[in-house]
Amino acid sequence: MTRLSLNQWTTRHWSVAEAVDGCARHGVPAIGLWREKVAEHGLAATAKLVRDAGLRVSSLCRGGFLTGDTWPRDNREAIDEAAELGAACLVMVVGGLPGVTPGGPPGPRASRDLAGARRRVAEALAALVPYAAERGVRLALEPLHPMYCADRAVLSTLKQALDLAEPYPAERVGVVVDTFHVWWDPEAPAQIARAGDRIASYQVCDQIHPLPADALLGRGIMGDGVIGFGPLTEAVRDAGYTGDVEVEIFNADVWAADPDEVLATVRARFDSLVRPALG
Amino acid sequence: MTRLSLNQWTTRHWSVAEAVDGCARHGVPAIGLWREKVAEHGLAATAKLVRDAGLRVSSLCRGGFLTGDTWPRDNREAIDEAAELGAACLVMVVGGLPGVTPGGPPGPRASRDLAGARRRVAEALAALVPYAAERGVRLALEPLHPMYCADRAVLSTLKQALDLAEPYPAERVGVVVDTFHVWWDPEAPAQIARAGDRIASYQVCDQIHPLPADALLGRGIMGDGVIGFGPLTEAVRDAGYTGDVEVEIFNADVWAADPDEVLATVRARFDSLVRPALG
Repeated sequence: MTRLSLNQWTTRHWSVAEAVDGCARHGVPAIGLWREKVAEHGLAATAKLVRDAGLRVSSLCRGGFLTGDTWPRDNREAIDEAAELGAACLVMVVGGLPGVTPGGPPGPRASRDLAGARRRVAEALAALVPYAAERGVRLALEPLHPMYCADRAVLSTLKQALDLAEPYPAERVGVVVDTFHVWWDPEAPAQIARAGDRIASYQVCDQIHPLPADALLGRGIMGDGVIGFGPLTEAVRDAGYTGDVEVEIFNADVWAADPDEVLATVRARFDSLVRPALG
Repeated sequence: MTRLSLNQWTTRHWSVAEAVDGCARHGVPAIGLWREKVAEHGLAATAKLVRDAGLRVSSLCRGGFLTGDTWPRDNREAIDEAAELGAACLVMVVGGLPGVTPGGPPGPRASRDLAGARRRVAEALAALVPYAAERGVRLALEPLHPMYCADRAVLSTLKQALDLAEPYPAERVGVVVDTFHVWWDPEAPAQIARAGDRIASYQVCDQIHPLPADALLGRGIMGDGVIGFGPLTEAVRDAGYTGDVEVEIFNADVWAADPDEVLATVRARFDSLVRPALG
């Protein structure tokens, strides 16, 4: 049985219903849901749909953006949704420097206090963990590639994510290992080993080279970029991770293609480049 | 006396002679030279020009690209030039994955073996250190931002650079601390402290946000981006660095502007944002 999970942003133009149907047709047993898509279909209806289809919800994307001002309500809602969906984890993209809009220019009040932003993340996490724990939701801290440090995540390495998670039980606060975000990191193998049962999600996609004009869209299907999947996947395996492996791709060409063809390619590349190293 | 040094790529359209003249007019006592520009003016003529102008040569850019096949000759030449110019160091940009051209798509024979590429760098360095030592040239390993890992430098963090430098005396192999490349790194302050007298060059520039279409050109004049210069500069000061502070900017708008205006702005921003923290 494959451990492939479709993160639904890979087939961005599919609704929740279309993505669930696509997973069934392609033999994909798990799905990573996005809150916007879930809201369009309805929360209770989505929960029923994936349950009836026998799909695992490998993650809900996403909570976070803890460095701004609206995080308490946003994240409580996200946690409630993750609980109702039975998601294995809520992915947390922690947010960038206060006042720096994702993808946009820094506003006049943009902060350059990186250490301060990182402290805010730790404080917000401390406030959210009990709320998530009461609802049985596991928060999954996702370190993002350093090129997104200013606007999307001041959490930049797996080591930093593990340090942040350390005060909490592993079943309450885990980490996401995403090949795109960590492949360059000389410490990645050692930190994956350290993570052990903190690994809440393993996400695979490639890094396109050169990066496109919008660096956010530099993710590609495995084999289309510069990442070697063997060593990272073996490290995740050796750390004891037995969960689903999500493929999450932000890429204008992928989004413009027929989602069925995309999913077929994803499945084939997963089988040739990732699955052998999963053991 | 200011410790500002003009890396001549900041005023890219100036020749060596124009840049030396610009430094004199703007009261800048040091220059970071580029090999292409030196070759245009002539090596011996450049050495005489900077000496007669009383300018320090804070660095020569650059050696490296050690993961390909032509590095032995290229780097011996670069070392010879650094010696003749009396450069404080030869900046080493170590190169990316074999077969991945800087800024271009991966070729059909592109490697995805990152660990292997990193081993090649260590082996090449071992071969070059004695040659550089005989000529009194200090090699300065420059970790580049992880977004350049595939094509320009598999050396991605200061920790990695210091680990690589460790077998050699600090006066033979140092490191470059460049704010653009290290600002996001949670380990940067600790690694700067660890570096101590290994810091061969401190380079300052900002990170433009969002990154331009060509990510290589995302460097900006201090104050135009998202980097806070105080903490990093204080860390470099506290590590004991007393050398020149180079401003190296790759930016299409900066290159299109009047170089004299650029240098005036660089000097003013250096005085307001960097100099106070230098002590």
